[in-house]
Amino acid sequence: MTAPLQVPPGYRAHDPESLRGYLAEISAVRDRLGGDPAAWTIEEVGDGNLNLVFKVRGPAMGVAVKQALPYLRLVGEGWPLPLERAHFEHMALSHEARHARGLVPEIYHYDETLALIAMELLEPHIIMRHGMIAGTVYPKFADDLSTFAANTLFFTSDLALKAAEKKAMVAAFAGNTELCKITEDLIFTEPYMVAERNRWTAPYLDPLAASIRDDGDLKVAVSRLKVKFMCDAEAMLHGDLHTGSVMLTPQETRVIDPEFAFMGPMGFDTGAVIANLLIAYFSQVGHESAPGGRDDYRAWVLQATTDFWNGFRAKFKKLWEENGTGDAYPAPLFASEAGQKRLAAEREAYLDRLFADTLGFAAAKIIRRILGLAHNIDLEKITDERVRATAEARCLRLARDMMVNTGAYGSIEAVCGQAERLNGWEPKLGG
Amino acid sequence: MTAPLQVPPGYRAHDPESLRGYLAEISAVRDRLGGDPAAWTIEEVGDGNLNLVFKVRGPAMGVAVKQALPYLRLVGEGWPLPLERAHFEHMALSHEARHARGLVPEIYHYDETLALIAMELLEPHIIMRHGMIAGTVYPKFADDLSTFAANTLFFTSDLALKAAEKKAMVAAFAGNTELCKITEDLIFTEPYMVAERNRWTAPYLDPLAASIRDDGDLKVAVSRLKVKFMCDAEAMLHGDLHTGSVMLTPQETRVIDPEFAFMGPMGFDTGAVIANLLIAYFSQVGHESAPGGRDDYRAWVLQATTDFWNGFRAKFKKLWEENGTGDAYPAPLFASEAGQKRLAAEREAYLDRLFADTLGFAAAKIIRRILGLAHNIDLEKITDERVRATAEARCLRLARDMMVNTGAYGSIEAVCGQAERLNGWEPKLGG
Repeated sequence: MTAPLQVPPGYRAHDPESLRGYLAEISAVRDRLGGDPAAWTIEEVGDGNLNLVFKVRGPAMGVAVKQALPYLRLVGEGWPLPLERAHFEHMALSHEARHARGLVPEIYHYDETLALIAMELLEPHIIMRHGMIAGTVYPKFADDLSTFAANTLFFTSDLALKAAEKKAMVAAFAGNTELCKITEDLIFTEPYMVAERNRWTAPYLDPLAASIRDDGDLKVAVSRLKVKFMCDAEAMLHGDLHTGSVMLTPQETRVIDPEFAFMGPMGFDTGAVIANLLIAYFSQVGHESAPGGRDDYRAWVLQATTDFWNGFRAKFKKLWEENGTGDAYPAPLFASEAGQKRLAAEREAYLDRLFADTLGFAAAKIIRRILGLAHNIDLEKITDERVRATAEARCLRLARDMMVNTGAYGSIEAVCGQAERLNGWEPKLGG
Repeated sequence: MTAPLQVPPGYRAHDPESLRGYLAEISAVRDRLGGDPAAWTIEEVGDGNLNLVFKVRGPAMGVAVKQALPYLRLVGEGWPLPLERAHFEHMALSHEARHARGLVPEIYHYDETLALIAMELLEPHIIMRHGMIAGTVYPKFADDLSTFAANTLFFTSDLALKAAEKKAMVAAFAGNTELCKITEDLIFTEPYMVAERNRWTAPYLDPLAASIRDDGDLKVAVSRLKVKFMCDAEAMLHGDLHTGSVMLTPQETRVIDPEFAFMGPMGFDTGAVIANLLIAYFSQVGHESAPGGRDDYRAWVLQATTDFWNGFRAKFKKLWEENGTGDAYPAPLFASEAGQKRLAAEREAYLDRLFADTLGFAAAKIIRRILGLAHNIDLEKITDERVRATAEARCLRLARDMMVNTGAYGSIEAVCGQAERLNGWEPKLGG
C-alpha cells in the first residue's frame, strides 16, 4: 500500500488539452469526431475511483476516453494500482463484444502504454444506479442483462470452449492479480473483521456490524465463497457487474468497465446483478416522497430481479443445448436418447448449483456495500440516517440469510418474497 | 494428433554416446560421476511412455538423466507432445523439493533446450508397482506419501499462499495444456464412450464396458469431476501420482515424474494414490501362488490405503493449524476463541469435501486403467484372462459405487471394507 508510485516509461495522465493533441493524431478517433480538433469540446467527468474519463465532442459525434490512473482515486496516491488493468479491460471488452454484441460500448482505439481506451460515447445513457434512485423503469434491462451474463459466461466456459482455448484465457487473465486482490480483501474479508477501511451508518448499525463480525457460520460461508472466487476459473467474469457498471436508457443497455475481469466463478457476476437490485429495492424507502410512493417501483425492481435470473437461466440453458461443444460434458457421452435426457436433468442441476453460488455471492456483495469501504449511492444518498440504517439493516438481514441458509431459497421468487417481508421489518437500531 | 513433428532449434534426442559427451561438459554432473567420462557406463532404460531415461554410472556415483521426447512413445510419432513438459516437471520438482524435502530426487542439472533433467539416481529403489506385484511390503510408504501429498498440496494452496503468489503459480503452470488434455481425454472422457484407443479384457469385460458406456449417472458424475479438474485450481498437483511414479525401498520413498503438474483440485492427487492401491489390492488374486497366498499382503495393502488417507488428513489439518497464513480463511476472521472453534469444525468439513473429491477421482483413475488406453501392469501381468477380468470387474464395481454413491463412504475404512467384500464377489463375465 505504501510502495512509491511508479509509472512505466511513456505513460502520462492526460488533461483535456494534452488529450486533444493526442486524439488529433489518432485517425480512428479524429475521423469520427470530425472537424477541427481545436474546436472539440473535452470535459473530464471522472468515474469515481480508478480512472480518468473524458467526454470528447466533435461536430460529427462524441467519443468517450477512459484512462487508467496508477493509483486508486478514492484513496489517493497511497494505494497504487497497476495500469495493466486497462489491458484486461480492453481484452474483456473484446470478448464481450463478440459474445454479447451491442451490449458493450464499441472500441475505437486502445493504447497499451497510456492505458487508454477510446470508445463509443454513451448518450443519453445514464448510470443505472442513478436512474434507480430517480425511480426510472428500464423495461429492457432484465432481458439485456440476462443476455449479457448468459452469453459472456457461457461462451467463455468449458461448456463452449475447447480446453486449450479456455486455458489460454486463464493464462491471459492470470495477471489481473491486484484487482482480484481488491475484491478478495474488500468483499470477502474486511467487512467481517475490524478493519480500518470499514465504515457504516454509525451508531445505528453498530450492533449489526458487531454481530456480523461475531457470526461464525457467516464467516465460514464467506470464506468458502472466497476460496471459490480464488480457485474456480469457470468462465470470464466482468468482475464488477453492479448497477454502476450499466449505462442505459429505457430502450438501450450497455455494460461498461470490465477492468476487474478474470476467469472465476460465474455466480460472482450473476450475484452482483441481483445484489445491486436488492439494494436498490430496500433503498427506495429513502427516495419516496411519501410512504408507499415508490410501491410500484419496488414491484418493478423485484420483477426485474426475477426476470433477470429466470431469463439468465433459460438463456444459459438454451445456449448449452445449442452450443454445448466444449470439452466439459463431452457430447459423445450423452448422444443417445437416454443420454440426452440425463444431460437435460444435469443442466438443471448445474443451474441449481449456479443459483446457490449466485445467492452466496450476491449476499457478499450486499454486505460489503454496507459494512465495507465502498458504499452505494442508493443508500448513501438517503440523508436521514435512521431511514438509511433501517434500509441497510434489512439488506443485511436478507444477505445473512441468503449466505448461510442458501438452500432454503429454491427460486428467485423465494428471494424476492423474503425481501418483501423484510421490507416491512423494523430493525432494532443502535445508538 | 497428426501435425507434423517439429522440434525446437537446439533440441536433439540423445543416445548414450552423445549423452556422454554432453555430460562431460556439465561440471555439476561430471564432478559427481567422477573419473574419466570415457569409462562411464550409460544405459537407456526407458520409462515407457513419454521420455528417454538413462542411467549413467561413474566411479564416484550414478546419475539419472531424463529427456523428454517430442512425441508419446507408447503411440509413436503420430502423437506429438510438447517438450515444454520438462520445464513443468523441473518447476514442479523444485516446488516439491522445497515442501517435501527428501521425498523427491535431487536435481543436479536442467537444460531447457534439450528438455533434459539430470538427477539423483535412485538405487536400489524400484518402481512401487513392481514391488506390489512381487508382494513387497513397504512399511514407510503410507507415512512418506501422506507427507508428500499433504505438504505439496497444502503449501501450494490458498491456505498457505498469499493470493499473488498463488496466482503466479496458476500463470506459471497454465501452459501445461497438452498434458492436462491427455488426462481430460483419457481419464474423464474416452472410457465412457466408444473410442478407438480404448481396450479391455475382451470378451469377458464386454458387458461391463457396455454398461458403463450406458450409465447416465456415472457419466454425469465423471463429467462433474472433469469440470472440477479443468476449473478448480486449488493447489499444485503432481498430476500423475500413481504407484508407477513412486520409487522406493522398504526404507526410503521418492516421488518422481511430475510432468503432468498443474494447478488443480487436490483430490486428483490423493485419489490417484488410493486408486492404484485398490487396483493393487484386487490384482493380488492373479499374483498369488495358491488361493489365499497373498492374504497377508492384501491386508497390508488395505492398511496402507487407510494409513495413507488418515495420515494425509491428520497432517494436512496440522499444517493448516500451524501454517494457515494464506489468504483463504483469513486468520483475523477466526481469531477469537469461538472463531478458532468454528474454524476447527470447518477444517473437518473441508477435509470431508476433499475426501469426497478423492473418492470420485480415485474411481475415475481406476476405471480408465481398465477400460481406457493406458493399463496397469498389476492387472496386465495376470496371464489368465478370466482371473484378470474377475479382478478388473471387482475394481470397476467398487469404482462405479465410489463415484456415484460417494456420500455413502464416510471414511477410508468404509472404502476398504467394501473392497474386501467385493474381493469375494464372483462377477458374471461375458464371452
